[in-house]
Amino acid sequence: MGRVNAFILSRTGSEVAMIPEVANHLINSGGKRLRPMLTLATAALSDYRGDGDVKLASAVEFMHTATLLHDDVVDGSEMRRGKLAARMLWGNEASVLVGDFLLGQAFKMMVEVGSLEALRILSEAASVIAEGEVMQLAAAKNTATTEDEYLAVVRGKTAELFAAACEVGPVIAGRPREEQAAARSYGMNLGIAFQLVDDALDYGGREAKLGKKVGDDFREGKITLPVVLAYRRGTAEERAFWKRTLENGEAEDSDLSEAMRLLTKHGAIDDTIARARHYGAIARDALGIFRGRAEAEALVDVVEFVTSRAH
Amino acid sequence: MGRVNAFILSRTGSEVAMIPEVANHLINSGGKRLRPMLTLATAALSDYRGDGDVKLASAVEFMHTATLLHDDVVDGSEMRRGKLAARMLWGNEASVLVGDFLLGQAFKMMVEVGSLEALRILSEAASVIAEGEVMQLAAAKNTATTEDEYLAVVRGKTAELFAAACEVGPVIAGRPREEQAAARSYGMNLGIAFQLVDDALDYGGREAKLGKKVGDDFREGKITLPVVLAYRRGTAEERAFWKRTLENGEAEDSDLSEAMRLLTKHGAIDDTIARARHYGAIARDALGIFRGRAEAEALVDVVEFVTSRAH
Repeated sequence: MGRVNAFILSRTGSEVAMIPEVANHLINSGGKRLRPMLTLATAALSDYRGDGDVKLASAVEFMHTATLLHDDVVDGSEMRRGKLAARMLWGNEASVLVGDFLLGQAFKMMVEVGSLEALRILSEAASVIAEGEVMQLAAAKNTATTEDEYLAVVRGKTAELFAAACEVGPVIAGRPREEQAAARSYGMNLGIAFQLVDDALDYGGREAKLGKKVGDDFREGKITLPVVLAYRRGTAEERAFWKRTLENGEAEDSDLSEAMRLLTKHGAIDDTIARARHYGAIARDALGIFRGRAEAEALVDVVEFVTSRAH
Repeated sequence: MGRVNAFILSRTGSEVAMIPEVANHLINSGGKRLRPMLTLATAALSDYRGDGDVKLASAVEFMHTATLLHDDVVDGSEMRRGKLAARMLWGNEASVLVGDFLLGQAFKMMVEVGSLEALRILSEAASVIAEGEVMQLAAAKNTATTEDEYLAVVRGKTAELFAAACEVGPVIAGRPREEQAAARSYGMNLGIAFQLVDDALDYGGREAKLGKKVGDDFREGKITLPVVLAYRRGTAEERAFWKRTLENGEAEDSDLSEAMRLLTKHGAIDDTIARARHYGAIARDALGIFRGRAEAEALVDVVEFVTSRAH
């Protein structure tokens, strides 16, 4: 990971001073570097020898960073990882364009590795991520979103990059199709678990741990799994509450405590965690064919780490 | 070009209905398809056989379309090619995300062609384009921008994609380095000429031909070559006018006629066209090594077409 960090920093440089300023603000803001770590781990699990894993891991982190910059513009977010979002400091314009720059840099790194298959996987991921975000934009204000529809959004906007980050490890090592599919499945399900825990934390986490305020999703009118569950389990009157606050965008700060009460009443947060554990279990089982390998054990620990963030 | 159009339309599809809506609004809005045409022409000039040129040409047009979607958000533009900009119909959010989707699709197309060298050229272009836009953002309100600084912006935000579109033709045909460099040089200088003519037209073109209003650059406070020239040739009082209207953003509709008067007084529009012709001449000469080829003659005609738009 030290080499990934060094490589990342070497590629945010530009004669245009604003680019490294904006990029490094976010890159050095204490992200967990979970996605690049997955690429290194699956490459190690595949006995990969070379430096392609470091470059692909860095490309994955750049893609993730570009997405965050654009997301914050799309959502109008003010905070990111406990700091002001880049758009609050340099404006929406710079956030859009520096995101585009990082995406271009990500593809340059992938080209350097020279694996067309890895390029195919990651460019497909770039399209699917954007597709998931547009889907969320279209569904954002619809409290009648079904759990299946919401999961389709999560697969696109979050899990696809986890899946791609894991799949490229065995791919550059030239491992058999079966192992590539196993790594992809692990990543996809870990990514879903990760997002669902995030959704739950938004209503229950402590601010310092979260890096943003409790209830941000509520204030932004985002329909996430806790709300989908509470809406479906609620009375007509409760549904009217969710419609007023989220669909009509009339949420006031004082509404958050009522939202929390309804979520608790219906066990929506606990059940969101339970759903996350289910996907975590699938991720673990996907690694079954690597049983006994130390790297596989470490990847299983990641599942535990991700799902236990909820406590 | 028929095959390019068909391929483009086949790749804007998505289950997420908003994506083809937004993408096709812009793609079908009567753009000149100049950039993909350059890829087809330089591939033909290189005796390329295969369908990679159609895919790369489509990828180039997708990169261009993604840039336009993001530009209109960054500039807050209301019109594009005589129609409402996508952001006015679907919002800034959708424009950012659909741009990201198209960029992902562009890279998928390039991967299908399988040329790592073409991928390297076009991913480098994606970074440089974004860099040029950020540079423009930083320089946008500075009336003291020098002609050289402005040309650096133009190379990045416009000419780089022309250069890359031309370079990939001989690259996928496996032609010698000398021919690749000639095609790149042609594209780069044609791109600069194109942008300078555009800058001149913004102050002098007829609205129907322009697809946007005369004086849009002025109203948006953009420093383009006509202004750079008029500022440097102007009196202290005139510089104060440019500072007030562009740098301080206090331009009123009534100021446009004064701006036009100053531009005319200093011959700034005519000289912008003269500068464009200079780059057009470099583009023509770059093709010298292909003398006698019908495709080279056609590419020379493109230079004439681009620079004579000014009349």
